[in-house]
Amino acid sequence: MANNLLDGKKGIIFGALNDKSIAWRTALRAHEEGARLVLTNTPVAMRLGDINQLSEICDAPVIPADATSLEELENLVVKSMEHFGGRFDFLLHSIGMSPNVRKGIPYDNINYDYYLKTLDISALSFHKIIQVCRKHDAINEWGSVVALSYVAAQRTLFGYNDMADAKAVLESIARSFGYIYGREKRIRINTVSQSPTMTTAGSGVKGMDSLIDFTERMSPLGNADADDCADYCIAMFSDLTRKVTMQNLYHDGGFSSMGMSEKAMTQYDKSFREAP
Amino acid sequence: MANNLLDGKKGIIFGALNDKSIAWRTALRAHEEGARLVLTNTPVAMRLGDINQLSEICDAPVIPADATSLEELENLVVKSMEHFGGRFDFLLHSIGMSPNVRKGIPYDNINYDYYLKTLDISALSFHKIIQVCRKHDAINEWGSVVALSYVAAQRTLFGYNDMADAKAVLESIARSFGYIYGREKRIRINTVSQSPTMTTAGSGVKGMDSLIDFTERMSPLGNADADDCADYCIAMFSDLTRKVTMQNLYHDGGFSSMGMSEKAMTQYDKSFREAP
Amino acid sequence: MANNLLDGKKGIIFGALNDKSIAWRTALRAHEEGARLVLTNTPVAMRLGDINQLSEICDAPVIPADATSLEELENLVVKSMEHFGGRFDFLLHSIGMSPNVRKGIPYDNINYDYYLKTLDISALSFHKIIQVCRKHDAINEWGSVVALSYVAAQRTLFGYNDMADAKAVLESIARSFGYIYGREKRIRINTVSQSPTMTTAGSGVKGMDSLIDFTERMSPLGNADADDCADYCIAMFSDLTRKVTMQNLYHDGGFSSMGMSEKAMTQYDKSFREAP
Amino acid sequence: MANNLLDGKKGIIFGALNDKSIAWRTALRAHEEGARLVLTNTPVAMRLGDINQLSEICDAPVIPADATSLEELENLVVKSMEHFGGRFDFLLHSIGMSPNVRKGIPYDNINYDYYLKTLDISALSFHKIIQVCRKHDAINEWGSVVALSYVAAQRTLFGYNDMADAKAVLESIARSFGYIYGREKRIRINTVSQSPTMTTAGSGVKGMDSLIDFTERMSPLGNADADDCADYCIAMFSDLTRKVTMQNLYHDGGFSSMGMSEKAMTQYDKSFREAP
Repeated sequence: MANNLLDGKKGIIFGALNDKSIAWRTALRAHEEGARLVLTNTPVAMRLGDINQLSEICDAPVIPADATSLEELENLVVKSMEHFGGRFDFLLHSIGMSPNVRKGIPYDNINYDYYLKTLDISALSFHKIIQVCRKHDAINEWGSVVALSYVAAQRTLFGYNDMADAKAVLESIARSFGYIYGREKRIRINTVSQSPTMTTAGSGVKGMDSLIDFTERMSPLGNADADDCADYCIAMFSDLTRKVTMQNLYHDGGFSSMGMSEKAMTQYDKSFREAP
Repeated sequence: MANNLLDGKKGIIFGALNDKSIAWRTALRAHEEGARLVLTNTPVAMRLGDINQLSEICDAPVIPADATSLEELENLVVKSMEHFGGRFDFLLHSIGMSPNVRKGIPYDNINYDYYLKTLDISALSFHKIIQVCRKHDAINEWGSVVALSYVAAQRTLFGYNDMADAKAVLESIARSFGYIYGREKRIRINTVSQSPTMTTAGSGVKGMDSLIDFTERMSPLGNADADDCADYCIAMFSDLTRKVTMQNLYHDGGFSSMGMSEKAMTQYDKSFREAP
Repeated sequence: MANNLLDGKKGIIFGALNDKSIAWRTALRAHEEGARLVLTNTPVAMRLGDINQLSEICDAPVIPADATSLEELENLVVKSMEHFGGRFDFLLHSIGMSPNVRKGIPYDNINYDYYLKTLDISALSFHKIIQVCRKHDAINEWGSVVALSYVAAQRTLFGYNDMADAKAVLESIARSFGYIYGREKRIRINTVSQSPTMTTAGSGVKGMDSLIDFTERMSPLGNADADDCADYCIAMFSDLTRKVTMQNLYHDGGFSSMGMSEKAMTQYDKSFREAP
Repeated sequence: MANNLLDGKKGIIFGALNDKSIAWRTALRAHEEGARLVLTNTPVAMRLGDINQLSEICDAPVIPADATSLEELENLVVKSMEHFGGRFDFLLHSIGMSPNVRKGIPYDNINYDYYLKTLDISALSFHKIIQVCRKHDAINEWGSVVALSYVAAQRTLFGYNDMADAKAVLESIARSFGYIYGREKRIRINTVSQSPTMTTAGSGVKGMDSLIDFTERMSPLGNADADDCADYCIAMFSDLTRKVTMQNLYHDGGFSSMGMSEKAMTQYDKSFREAP
């Protein structure tokens, strides 16, 4: 399915690690729809992952950048504009990391330096990227900025830890900056609240398998996977969604609007059988 | 615990069937806090239940009324004002019934005459009560009107059927009329979104036991029971909450803000054990 | 802009009155994107409006139907399947009418027969359409059903009257039926909460001009117009959004996420100047 | 009005500066309702304000603490437990400050060190207080923890700057920690989303007068003032609300559920008169 939906558009994709990444799948789809791309990730993620492979497929340069560093973001934006020969049209933020989660530090005994790092990496990075873009007037009118979020911003999931708070800030930044960038340049900023996804990052979360089974049974359409999410991001980058801004958009097969499904309840009921 | 919180206040309680009813427990607590009461229910519910017992305990007359009948509501309001010697201060709407649910008709093959009845009984009755009160200028300034709702208004639960849609209207009526009655007479109108509760009405809902087990494990404070809800209604009737209006207030031990708890997930995981 | 996004898809559009209608603009765009269409409206609306003109442009038959009549909906669905030679893929519900609003009856002195009519026309019609489609297994897997809604379902606007409650039911129906149709046939059901729009219907609402000025200044991207909405509906009908269901999607230039904009506040401030 | 609602209860109140402060009014009311108190604020705020006066009225010691310092919070909690002779029952967090706002730095050219300070002071402080309390097992079962928030966490208001994002984290912390502290000790954690209030802090916000005029006209009950908020906090500290947790509770005269009121629209319309 390719419809030239992004024909003539240019964009930067943050956070493609390997072919399981939502950012990776989105880059593929954007390329397929006719967009020109710049890929970026931290130097560490570049070493661990396969971004150069993606770079070849999409014919897109990789410009490394630590998204917490204003300097490196400046470099990324300036280099991207040089590559594109001017402004670009869209941007995907798919970045999140919690040192507390990584080190198994629970939320009720949290390390506050790490907590601030979680916020800086997973949320402030989004603000920084936008602020740098705006400073360089880097995004065309009616451009589209998307960050990936998760329902943990609204509802607590055990083990998700300070990432929940980070997603809450991320979504708030989308609103706060969406207002400013919208009134000035008609640029829209939204977050996509995606189903739990078995990416390399996702698989680190505690109890991920069980959670994915549960949400699969709860969601009438089943969980949305990375390819589904890529499709949705294409819609959000396209001109079809130009008046949607400051929104958190659930892309989750219906999970967020479910209280209890018959399937999940039936499975739950089995838990009360006598153990063997 | 009695603090004369409703000293000098008067109110009408709809929907007390028997001592499991939330309306019953609320009447008891309001009485305890010094309020004078009028009780009401449909003639049928009066026969099936024990409201005369409650009437004695609370020293409150029972004035029968079908809450879908404007005429009977007129009679109720006029008689209540006679009994109280003037205006009253609060009102509890605890009324809900779906002929589709009763007759086991599924949502996807619904009977539309019954559907309109569900809405009339469970939601429009709330509008009618308020409209009749307003016409008779029956509620004192800073009065408080509460209706009981359920999270099904926001999130779908299998088997809850057209009652979900009815609760959505109910909450909308609280907002729509809350605006009007608020600006005119400073009267506040709210809905309380209560945990699933094992009342006589609640026990008719499909899969209620399993659902209550699940929500108990999901909610950090456990499910709120009828007595908890009565306490909360007292707070909403008291002068402590005079500036809260047009709200849907979750009273559910935290359930509405949970994505997944460790307890519920642990139980769910047991379902995957080999069957005996 | 045409990208063959709906190539091979077929759909029914309810509610196109004249070239200001959102349904009209959506039909045009769907046609442009390669979809085959059936148009429908009530016989009265057909006489008042210009649907035959649209029919010619889109090469689409008009099959009249009163959306509150199961019989007429049956006829519509059966005839549409005959025309398409089988199942179809999408459906737009753009129907709303309140006899109370029409007759200038205020919300606090409402006529309950009219109120039930408002609900029947503006909300139950959506349920009926879906129920009839499901009965005839009329929609293809991964099909998309959209109804137009308004922020009045969440926030009270003076003068919007019982239409607010109707929109609340409409959105609830999208969730309730979205669950059922999703788990069975992967069909998604969503509502689009659109900016106030100067359609023929919209222009009947009290104080519409001032409201549109206010929301225009509040929304960073300005109000979304009928063409914008048509574009968004195309995205919702396309395969790009297959995992989005049971959602109410704000398409309003950011209005729903605004508390106060500088532009609106500046205008508001002018109201305190000395009158001439 | 005093009903001994907090008879036998003990609590810590953060953030009372002077007699306009919500924290001040809440302390007065809690004292009136029979609670024993400890007051706290930063050394700077103590010098600028009149907290010693409040201390005398409430017969409550003042224990200074910078709420961003774990050490000072440890000292506060230990000293408070000594004073109370054991655990306490409630806690009010009324703390917020943005160096960016103070220095007039706009959101689109923000200083990120200041931004992290805003989050640390206005949101992480809430986490720190709770974490320290939990470590010392300082709060009784069924205790109640409240923080003051603002609708800017959901809807953007120009000029509110990074405080919007801070309030979003604050509310997220209430959920995240509410889950943990709830399941362990039945302690509830909520935020109260208060009307814009003319406290010393509030009067620093850009365009505050106009905003307060607008929200006053929009809210059917008018804005909630500091005394109203104090009353509501008493309800939240009392045993009447024991099953409410992880909620953001709007205490705003209805503002949050309004789309447009007749009063506000009428005033807005005046802005289009010919200037003199």
